Amino acid sequence: MGHLSGKCEGKKMKQADIGLIGLAVMGENLVMNMESKGFTVAVFNRTTEKVDHFVEGRAKGKNIIGCHSIEEMKDALKKPRKVMLMVKAGSAVDDYIEKLLAVLEPGDIIIDGGNSHFPDTIRRTAYVESKGLLYVGTGVSGGEEGALKGPSMMPGGSPAAWEYVKPIFQAICAHVEDGSPCCEWVGENGAGHFVKMVHNGIEYGDMQLICEAYQLMRDMLGLSANEMHDVFAEWNKTELDSYLIEITRDILAYKDTDGKPIVDKILDTAGQKGTGKWTGIAALDEGVPLTLIGEAVFARCLSAMKAERVTAAAAFKRETVPFTGDKKAFIEDIRKALFASKIISYAQGYTLMRAAAKTYGWNLNYGGIALMWRGGCIIRSVFLGKIKEAYDKDPALSNLLLDPYFKEVMESLIPAWRNVCSAAVTHGVPAPAMNAALNYFDGYTCALLPANLLQAQRDYFGAHTYERLDAPRGEFYHTNWTGEGGDTASSTYNA
Amino acid sequence: MGHLSGKCEGKKMKQADIGLIGLAVMGENLVMNMESKGFTVAVFNRTTEKVDHFVEGRAKGKNIIGCHSIEEMKDALKKPRKVMLMVKAGSAVDDYIEKLLAVLEPGDIIIDGGNSHFPDTIRRTAYVESKGLLYVGTGVSGGEEGALKGPSMMPGGSPAAWEYVKPIFQAICAHVEDGSPCCEWVGENGAGHFVKMVHNGIEYGDMQLICEAYQLMRDMLGLSANEMHDVFAEWNKTELDSYLIEITRDILAYKDTDGKPIVDKILDTAGQKGTGKWTGIAALDEGVPLTLIGEAVFARCLSAMKAERVTAAAAFKRETVPFTGDKKAFIEDIRKALFASKIISYAQGYTLMRAAAKTYGWNLNYGGIALMWRGGCIIRSVFLGKIKEAYDKDPALSNLLLDPYFKEVMESLIPAWRNVCSAAVTHGVPAPAMNAALNYFDGYTCALLPANLLQAQRDYFGAHTYERLDAPRGEFYHTNWTGEGGDTASSTYNA
Repeated sequence: MGHLSGKCEGKKMKQADIGLIGLAVMGENLVMNMESKGFTVAVFNRTTEKVDHFVEGRAKGKNIIGCHSIEEMKDALKKPRKVMLMVKAGSAVDDYIEKLLAVLEPGDIIIDGGNSHFPDTIRRTAYVESKGLLYVGTGVSGGEEGALKGPSMMPGGSPAAWEYVKPIFQAICAHVEDGSPCCEWVGENGAGHFVKMVHNGIEYGDMQLICEAYQLMRDMLGLSANEMHDVFAEWNKTELDSYLIEITRDILAYKDTDGKPIVDKILDTAGQKGTGKWTGIAALDEGVPLTLIGEAVFARCLSAMKAERVTAAAAFKRETVPFTGDKKAFIEDIRKALFASKIISYAQGYTLMRAAAKTYGWNLNYGGIALMWRGGCIIRSVFLGKIKEAYDKDPALSNLLLDPYFKEVMESLIPAWRNVCSAAVTHGVPAPAMNAALNYFDGYTCALLPANLLQAQRDYFGAHTYERLDAPRGEFYHTNWTGEGGDTASSTYNA
Repeated sequence: MGHLSGKCEGKKMKQADIGLIGLAVMGENLVMNMESKGFTVAVFNRTTEKVDHFVEGRAKGKNIIGCHSIEEMKDALKKPRKVMLMVKAGSAVDDYIEKLLAVLEPGDIIIDGGNSHFPDTIRRTAYVESKGLLYVGTGVSGGEEGALKGPSMMPGGSPAAWEYVKPIFQAICAHVEDGSPCCEWVGENGAGHFVKMVHNGIEYGDMQLICEAYQLMRDMLGLSANEMHDVFAEWNKTELDSYLIEITRDILAYKDTDGKPIVDKILDTAGQKGTGKWTGIAALDEGVPLTLIGEAVFARCLSAMKAERVTAAAAFKRETVPFTGDKKAFIEDIRKALFASKIISYAQGYTLMRAAAKTYGWNLNYGGIALMWRGGCIIRSVFLGKIKEAYDKDPALSNLLLDPYFKEVMESLIPAWRNVCSAAVTHGVPAPAMNAALNYFDGYTCALLPANLLQAQRDYFGAHTYERLDAPRGEFYHTNWTGEGGDTASSTYNA
């Protein structure tokens, strides 16, 4: 391996618009996508054989420059240099940042396109900026296919970097019907990766809701995979029209080699890679009730305990309560319950983003976020267009449920939703996300919760004090409940 | 202020059994408790006026030695010296550790009795041990009254420290009917504070369940505070017999100056100090479905959004569905639903402890933990005696629900539990924790969850592969669902 590959010599020097490091499938596909939009891309990979393999194979004859070192890549790039990392989230990103800082110059831009945790991106933005360079942490969603054909992109970081990466990002990203790009500047430092994390949490929620609808039809109504294929095909023509409903429809029709539905042969233990968990932790940190996504994450954990579930199922034999109602009407109720729950999930996710924006000083464009998710990514749907409209109308909307459109839709869904949740708990079919969503709705729309009793309890055992309905906020009272504890309120006991 | 106060001079030197730093109400009460059990206690406080005030007031004539510096305290203590910190969790603990390390000697013991986060205690144990001293992080529960009369104590840290602190801790802690102390060695480094954290999470859950029962009676059945006082008084004579039911009973009877129940005048916005949140985060980190405590934490967050709830309640006017059944029978169903949900909460909490024990290498004594919680602390109850019995019978019990006693009890509760959850969602009364508990139960006892579909979805959009019901575990399959994606499975995309 020479210091300079043939491909980096002579005329080809200084002509690349962007460099990309990390030629796994997502990285390769992004490079092909960029090149197809007229950009020249310099590529590097730690295992340099991959560079040669790519340049001589898929990239042959294209404006793609293989580099065997980071120095070579530096020399191949136009200024200000833009280098995008598509490497595993974690220490590999920090390692490449150090390597790039050693060769790049002030004003150059380092871009992280992996699924980094937003606190890391906050830290890295400050660090790279302290060295005089610019940093972008961008969410990229849509899987392999999205990377190639147009992903949803959620960039944040150094605001000064946006004008340089914008032409490339908005060319390669997905676009909705009217041509709007599914990529806009999200905000400073970790904002892009935060929004991507919430996207992934919402993806967990959407998938869980579909699974609950599927289990209700399978276990309560006794529908076959073929019958459910027809149901999801119909649902995809309604407000639920979305990528995940579409692939569910197709999955249910897919036959194994023996002609039987393959879905029935797949083991029911879900995997996860941690971004749903991060969303739940962020919600707990922000004090935002993100109950649906929380249940979706926990449902994956529970599914993984297969052996224990089989044991418990044998121990607790349930008499199956046969379903005696109108199946077709109940299927429509399930659709409505799914839709209502989905609205709650997005309402909760947006509440989390609003809280984080306040904590981290981001000026988030909520309609813009809906537009970014509208196409390209896993949660893409027609529904997101309605969310964009709601936030375009009122950028300060405190909760999606208070938007007139969603309020009206919700009211039309409530009876069916209650019916499905009630049937699920009666029949013993788990529907944790739908139930959590309904309970959140009933709590959110409840002017008087029972927390008065809870505050009395906390004041009783810990002298935590309470406020009163008939006194101004900010006035704290303590009752000497037992006549023994004295009148001193506590401020140190943690409960 | 001289370097040595009179009280530390001459004969009184070297005679204190333990030193305590931090004379807020919890600290003072612990000192009084220790002294009443025959121990001589040296005390210090950052604001030394507090020391004088205490020594000349409440501690007058007792074997309590006021110290005006840490050096004085060191000189007053028998070897190996034991110094207990009762200061605010966080950097204050680290600061005092540094100060103590500067004056103490190898073999001496530093004890943190605050609500520290267990990862801090893991770090501090290693640090203090690296200096040749021993460290104990102990949970102390029971509030001010418990500190004075006998708290539940959950010590972990350096195992070699236990023999020295045991005589003091087991003398001052609560004791159950047969005289057993509610304090046993929990495990290495952060084990004690971890178990205390789970205790606090369970406390959140227990309180939330009582609040849901209260709201169901208040809003669905229209019961008054006085009527509910009678209900809780009756419930405290059943399996629910516990401190929290007892104080709820008393709270409901407490009258304001105008003779009306004070509980009706308290604002319904719950406070929290973060330990419930930590428990939720630990569960997400461990991948353990801790749904009930999660809902309890989120319910407090939701209650805090009072103004928004009032707005939402006005927007979504609900027609109240009148309750037409037998009130007395339904109250008994609520009691059963509360009990069943409580069993789930403890089952989930114990599952979390088992997972953490594996992660951190702790050899936890689960029956011993139930005994520690049996008395002294906020969640003390008769019920915990049954949990102790279950783990004494089978220390490796994977889930409380599989213990014969709890299995039988659960089966007797299920119909009422389903009835209450169904009524709650039908009537629009939020009962998020009871519903989460039932949905967990239905998932845990379900041999075939819908995660087969979820795995198909993940394989479809991310080539994540799946296992098959008809193939050995550990064999991973990938389907080329669209005929376009190729047969390459992915291992890098995070979903």
